Amino acid sequence: MAETVKDISAALLIIGDEILSGRTKDANLSYLAVWLNEIGIQLAEVRVVPDIENEIAAAVNALRLKFDYLFTTGGIGPTHDDITVDSVAAAFEVPVVVHPEAYRRMLEYYGEENFTDARKRMTRVPKGAELIDNPVSIAPGIRIDNVFIMAGVPKIMQSMLEGIRPHLKTGRKVWTSSLTVHAPESKIAEGLGKIQDDYPQTSIGSYPFYGQGYGANIVIRSADKDAIDGAMGAVMNMCDAMGFEMDHPTTLS
Amino acid sequence: MAETVKDISAALLIIGDEILSGRTKDANLSYLAVWLNEIGIQLAEVRVVPDIENEIAAAVNALRLKFDYLFTTGGIGPTHDDITVDSVAAAFEVPVVVHPEAYRRMLEYYGEENFTDARKRMTRVPKGAELIDNPVSIAPGIRIDNVFIMAGVPKIMQSMLEGIRPHLKTGRKVWTSSLTVHAPESKIAEGLGKIQDDYPQTSIGSYPFYGQGYGANIVIRSADKDAIDGAMGAVMNMCDAMGFEMDHPTTLS
Repeated sequence: MAETVKDISAALLIIGDEILSGRTKDANLSYLAVWLNEIGIQLAEVRVVPDIENEIAAAVNALRLKFDYLFTTGGIGPTHDDITVDSVAAAFEVPVVVHPEAYRRMLEYYGEENFTDARKRMTRVPKGAELIDNPVSIAPGIRIDNVFIMAGVPKIMQSMLEGIRPHLKTGRKVWTSSLTVHAPESKIAEGLGKIQDDYPQTSIGSYPFYGQGYGANIVIRSADKDAIDGAMGAVMNMCDAMGFEMDHPTTLS
Repeated sequence: MAETVKDISAALLIIGDEILSGRTKDANLSYLAVWLNEIGIQLAEVRVVPDIENEIAAAVNALRLKFDYLFTTGGIGPTHDDITVDSVAAAFEVPVVVHPEAYRRMLEYYGEENFTDARKRMTRVPKGAELIDNPVSIAPGIRIDNVFIMAGVPKIMQSMLEGIRPHLKTGRKVWTSSLTVHAPESKIAEGLGKIQDDYPQTSIGSYPFYGQGYGANIVIRSADKDAIDGAMGAVMNMCDAMGFEMDHPTTLS
């Protein structure tokens, strides 16, 4: 395996029993991964933990110290099982306080009468935190240090990301080129390994598929476009020489 | 948040750059979660790590010591980026050896001529490991201690699980009952919190939705069916008293 280019790294912490029970399928991981890559940040680890404060706090501390950024999703609603704010505060060893601007926005939106205790709960933040705008449903996300606390509902999570973008330092975008080869993966494995050795600045992955026919998708990733072109050329020459058919050739994106 | 019933716990480690790049969407998490729950095992944590040996080994050690079982998916094919076996061996501090029975099966299937070095790679296991049958594509999964190493291709992963089933001790199945309430989540939040306090042997989750209308899905989980019935009855009474419409009522599964 080649060194993966990762100038700027991020982790995602998905908080929620509903994902671990299999009841809800996470839709945020792949969206965030692609979104981050567009601005030159590599998603380098993901964890899913249950709605248990010390589990969340331990994961927050492990990930915020290991990577440039940590994004969390889930657990910031009004109900008793929404404990992300308390857990992140515990991780940072700071108290939970009401954020005046969050309070103002929610009060303005709901009015005195409908500003229930449950909704007031959504104005709480770890002390020292800033707000992340929520154009969809007002109740804000939260930033503290390098941790971005977002909603789990995909539409809201995605809208919060746009507010986060200006706060992120961006790195070199990693380009991807892919090719479908109609061959048993094991027939091209040795050659692929050699090409990987020849192009250490790329990361070459091979992902077999079965179903309607079989074969492997070859994916080459690198911040260096020329290296990708060189490695992909070598893969195509190899497959051609071995008489294997290829599809969907080299699209750089 | 109530204590979640989890007599027997498991973790899933998803190995693969293709998931972290967002290119491939994982399909194994929710399948495994539901499959495990059917036999009374709770999926309690999930991690996704890149194809880097020391990252994989560190996650294997953290998770195998913390939970009753660890399942891994991905990275056991014939190519250079398939390093799960080496990484798990490193975690257990044992060498990698060829498993004679894996060798015999692969040789029988492919024949002398087509048994390439790449395919021979798939007969390697951490020393002391046992095989997990692969009815789909022969190359076996691997069991070492409480760690089950499976393929990442969903069809193969699912077939391997059936071979693993007899090796697992099973616990109390956790039942789930759910209800859709057409109300702003914050209106029912306080009442839900009280019901959670009244039924500590259950875990009550509330998951808001937006789109065509809005509301919240209330999900109650417990190994105690009667407690679920009691808690769900209390939720329905509360919503009824507040004049909120309900859908898809209480299905215990």
